Amino acid sequence: MEGLDTGTNMNKKNLDALFDPQSIAIVGASATAGKAGYMAVKLLETYAGKVYPVNPKAKEILGHKVYPSLSTIGQPVDLVLFAVPASECPALMREAAGIGARAAIIMGGGFGETGAEGLKIQNELVAISRQYDMRMLGPNTGGYANPVKRLVASFSVSYSKLPPGSIAVVSQSGGISLILACMLENQGFGVSLTVGLGNSVDVDAADVIDYLAQDSNTRAIALYLEGIGDGRRLYESIRRATRIKPVIALTIGRNAIGDFAKSHTGNLVGSYQIKTAAFRQAGAVVVENSNDLVDAACAFSLLRLPPAADPAIGVLVGQAGAGLLILDQLKSLSINVPHLGEATIARIAEQLPPMHYLNNPVDAGRPTPEFPEVLRILAQDDQLHAIVVFVLHEPTVLDPVAMFRELKPQLTKPVIYGTAGETADMAATCRGLVEQGVAPYTSPERTARAMRALAEDARNRQRLSFQDENRPSSQREIRLPPGRIDEATGKDLCRTAGIPAPEFRTCRDRQEAHKTFAELRKPLAVKVLSADILHKTEVGGVFLNIRTADELDNALQKIDRIPAAGSVAYLLEEMAEPGLDLILGGMRDPVFGPVVLLGIGGTIAEAIKDVSMRLAPIQPQDAAEMLQELRAKVLLEGWRGAPPVNRQAVIDAMLAVSDLLVGCPDIQELDINPLRATATGVLALDALIVRA
Amino acid sequence: MEGLDTGTNMNKKNLDALFDPQSIAIVGASATAGKAGYMAVKLLETYAGKVYPVNPKAKEILGHKVYPSLSTIGQPVDLVLFAVPASECPALMREAAGIGARAAIIMGGGFGETGAEGLKIQNELVAISRQYDMRMLGPNTGGYANPVKRLVASFSVSYSKLPPGSIAVVSQSGGISLILACMLENQGFGVSLTVGLGNSVDVDAADVIDYLAQDSNTRAIALYLEGIGDGRRLYESIRRATRIKPVIALTIGRNAIGDFAKSHTGNLVGSYQIKTAAFRQAGAVVVENSNDLVDAACAFSLLRLPPAADPAIGVLVGQAGAGLLILDQLKSLSINVPHLGEATIARIAEQLPPMHYLNNPVDAGRPTPEFPEVLRILAQDDQLHAIVVFVLHEPTVLDPVAMFRELKPQLTKPVIYGTAGETADMAATCRGLVEQGVAPYTSPERTARAMRALAEDARNRQRLSFQDENRPSSQREIRLPPGRIDEATGKDLCRTAGIPAPEFRTCRDRQEAHKTFAELRKPLAVKVLSADILHKTEVGGVFLNIRTADELDNALQKIDRIPAAGSVAYLLEEMAEPGLDLILGGMRDPVFGPVVLLGIGGTIAEAIKDVSMRLAPIQPQDAAEMLQELRAKVLLEGWRGAPPVNRQAVIDAMLAVSDLLVGCPDIQELDINPLRATATGVLALDALIVRA
Repeated sequence: MEGLDTGTNMNKKNLDALFDPQSIAIVGASATAGKAGYMAVKLLETYAGKVYPVNPKAKEILGHKVYPSLSTIGQPVDLVLFAVPASECPALMREAAGIGARAAIIMGGGFGETGAEGLKIQNELVAISRQYDMRMLGPNTGGYANPVKRLVASFSVSYSKLPPGSIAVVSQSGGISLILACMLENQGFGVSLTVGLGNSVDVDAADVIDYLAQDSNTRAIALYLEGIGDGRRLYESIRRATRIKPVIALTIGRNAIGDFAKSHTGNLVGSYQIKTAAFRQAGAVVVENSNDLVDAACAFSLLRLPPAADPAIGVLVGQAGAGLLILDQLKSLSINVPHLGEATIARIAEQLPPMHYLNNPVDAGRPTPEFPEVLRILAQDDQLHAIVVFVLHEPTVLDPVAMFRELKPQLTKPVIYGTAGETADMAATCRGLVEQGVAPYTSPERTARAMRALAEDARNRQRLSFQDENRPSSQREIRLPPGRIDEATGKDLCRTAGIPAPEFRTCRDRQEAHKTFAELRKPLAVKVLSADILHKTEVGGVFLNIRTADELDNALQKIDRIPAAGSVAYLLEEMAEPGLDLILGGMRDPVFGPVVLLGIGGTIAEAIKDVSMRLAPIQPQDAAEMLQELRAKVLLEGWRGAPPVNRQAVIDAMLAVSDLLVGCPDIQELDINPLRATATGVLALDALIVRA
Repeated sequence: MEGLDTGTNMNKKNLDALFDPQSIAIVGASATAGKAGYMAVKLLETYAGKVYPVNPKAKEILGHKVYPSLSTIGQPVDLVLFAVPASECPALMREAAGIGARAAIIMGGGFGETGAEGLKIQNELVAISRQYDMRMLGPNTGGYANPVKRLVASFSVSYSKLPPGSIAVVSQSGGISLILACMLENQGFGVSLTVGLGNSVDVDAADVIDYLAQDSNTRAIALYLEGIGDGRRLYESIRRATRIKPVIALTIGRNAIGDFAKSHTGNLVGSYQIKTAAFRQAGAVVVENSNDLVDAACAFSLLRLPPAADPAIGVLVGQAGAGLLILDQLKSLSINVPHLGEATIARIAEQLPPMHYLNNPVDAGRPTPEFPEVLRILAQDDQLHAIVVFVLHEPTVLDPVAMFRELKPQLTKPVIYGTAGETADMAATCRGLVEQGVAPYTSPERTARAMRALAEDARNRQRLSFQDENRPSSQREIRLPPGRIDEATGKDLCRTAGIPAPEFRTCRDRQEAHKTFAELRKPLAVKVLSADILHKTEVGGVFLNIRTADELDNALQKIDRIPAAGSVAYLLEEMAEPGLDLILGGMRDPVFGPVVLLGIGGTIAEAIKDVSMRLAPIQPQDAAEMLQELRAKVLLEGWRGAPPVNRQAVIDAMLAVSDLLVGCPDIQELDINPLRATATGVLALDALIVRA
């Protein structure tokens, strides 16, 4: 498959030894019930492969022969579980490498997350794992469960209780890998794998995602990530995976919680906005909490919508109130709930008594014997991509399991089914629904949000399918001129990249300024030009609407009085026509590399942080999405009688910034603030470039 | 109790006959199994009062003697259930009144929600109910369940399966009253009453809230409302109820869903923002979806925090990842999670091995035998008002039910407990926790959001407790001068109310303008003054920074050229110093009456609708909250080096607008746009008043 390079396949091969080993040795195995080294052996009781407990003193643990050391096993060992203190790990890791083990799981803490001493041990383990091509999970991990193989590589008994299923859970935190798996189990879904990555200094999320993308037991991948090491690698792995199966991502860091996060796995939290932008850009469905993660994963384990630019959703309810909650929720999530076609309405009207709301939602009143037929008709409406149903559970009136069993051959569209009923009734019903390939939800809004996840995935797929024929990026490399970059140089660079700027001149002295004044179209902006002055306005170095020679003199005089470290010149520039001011920028993030930013200009937009981001290089579809993500986007449409902004010109400027960031590694930060956008085009009114 | 007038007590007395009747007659009772009139009789089988089925043909239904008409019952009847077509209702309603029935439930549809004909019948029913002091639930209602009395007044079998409890559900929609009750049951909680109000043309939400405020079986009231009839009455009833017990409110209408909503109960949806502002102002906790409504109700049925300005929450987790999700969620909800005191940290450190994060959250690693002691110590921290705990369920390590049973006598703070585990384990554990007075939740974020509901209620109580000694409102009535109100009159009115405006003069001709020019401090704003011109800027009638007589002439000339229907004058005004522009306004909402609005000025804030609202009259605490609700509120603190805005001056202006709206019923709309706010005070730079 295109996009899966050999590196990826290498990863998968090595990870087989970790997640699907033929044999497992446990160092630190214990005969004392309750100890971690005892639990690790005990939890392997359902495992079909070979188990080799290692302990210098014990003879037998839970019926297994015990080996005094790894070297005395004398049989091939795929995976070694470490249930020993941190300080003992490096020597044992070398011994494991010596007997040809291909993977290790370092459970327990005391490594990089605790300080310098632990970090030293951790670095030693990384060095050994690299030297011997031995993959290492952790340290500071609780291990994993692979219920499909009945394999629990952990000392936590909670991992042993999980039913098999087709959802893979990849979590930075071992605790969350268990919590999510329990939440899935509570909803009647099992996991193909649930793993806590811990400090993830060797095997990281990207490795596991690549592995799971190829794992035939896994239909959906649920991610929980905190801090991220190599953002670009992660992005690429999600990008590869979403081509094959849905990925749902949850992360933290909307608020200042960094101290606590670092204590957990030793990672910095990083920017929430960049993380989620990158996940989305790679095709993942980003969710805001663990419940939405679980709800989306349940739906995706059963179905996935085909690519669609703006999936249209039909809604059918047995209770109008539920329909209102669903409709309000779907619209809040920008989901398209179109009016139904006349033909569909007419056909449904034949099924229902009058007095029902026959549009979208369709209100069936309470379910009647005609309900399945109404659903069938709705699903046949060509414009709809999927259907949301919500019906209060009244088993005497409607058996939803039977309904779907009978409808299945004719049901042409994916359905998300919401219902509410007594606990006792619901368990069997939900199980039955899952067997029919229908994900059940127990509140109107959860039903709607599960559908939103499906729709978002369909949109991502549509966007990414376009990008499979990528626009050629201007790969030519650009070098910044030496020294600090002033506004004039910044604007020249913008122009070279294809972003227009107003007509301007640099003047070294007053005489030159007056000569230039005569040549340019008035009014002018007159600014101080100095690479040493980052904030020209704040030092009183910007004069607008200069129309006369007197006004020019006055401005130049004032500029001359500004204290500046370096050399100062004047920048004279033709004033732009009024329009909407945007902020277009880019920066090099320590985790994700070059990032393009777009925001609305002005203090208010800045105060509410109305900004959208993507990893560079961006594609035209990314740029269009960024515009749509701005909260004040209505201003682009032409506000209070102003004409709409030329979106294509804005998009072209964004692509140019993306090219600049990619082509010119010298740029640490680039700010076009403002980028004046009008009905006809854009102009960079200021450009600030900070060298890397 | 103060605030509960005799009207309220009357309501309660009459509603007893509706919700706790001694005898019930069913018109339209049927002997045919499956019919609504049969189900209504059947569902009364657990009811302890008298049951009188009415049917001209049948002799016996389910063991009850059947009466040919209401008049032939010959016994007192409290409540009559109507299971007959709409057209038959008025005559039967009169007959019910004739035998002294005090309440009626009109089930089924065909009334105001369907059009003119149904509305006519509905109005007739209202007239009869008013004439005979007979309370009517519905029409278009599914009835209710009062599981505490084992009473189901409905034909929907779903109502019969609900366990008793202390949560009352008041829902516009019968379907939602059932869905919410099922969701509560799924979480192990029962209801004291769950009722669908239907078209609520007699008994409305306000009546039921007043009734439930006094109902000793009800500890928390959960509201689901769509459109609202008399907003002020509803507001007052919530205000009375929240003095006594918590109220949680969910409504719809964030998006355009009006068509569908109107088809449901015949009500308009109304403004989501005004509705939720009114609920909050009255002391209710506003939630965004049914899950949060249910989760909050469960917590409130067990506990309520005492009033607190900013409740401080302690967090204790067994898994750091859960702590991160909880912390991020709490901070997103603006909940105060303070650093712990040194003493608390030192005491906890004695209990836990090193390597744990000992602040807030406290990360206990996996639960150990010391876990209960850590919780006890944390709860003893004087600065904390309540504790959130989240622990993966590992029954072999920690039995949470036993922990709370043992801790209870010493646990000085309310606790919300989150956990995750196998379905089979969880059911009994959650039941046991509820018995210990601890509400259990099964995801980190739900645990956090339940705590947010408790904290919000505590804040509301604190705010409202201040308001029990209300600031005297300027009750004096103000009349608008006759005719349309121009800017000068508007500003005079603002000044009279206590809102400063810049020094300005009205000039009838150029000569007067030049004379005035000489007297005022330059620069000036020169504006067209005409009550016929609503948008001065848009017709080119505003000139700023006028410093010279020439500039004045130029402005006056241009103003003279503006076509205007009425008489035109000039307004000359001293320019205000720079500052932050706010929009302060008021309007008379058709549902809620006078409403005060505050927003940030400028197109961007307008584009993102950054505005906060409250019903007038507001109190100083309301005004302060409104400032805090603005998304761009950071601008008030002094943005980019500007000094902070004088908040007290803004609050005073808001209170003045509130007084104006209350004291002057002539005002339909009032817009001070902008209200210039600086470090020293505020100035109304423009004032537009629209007569009612």
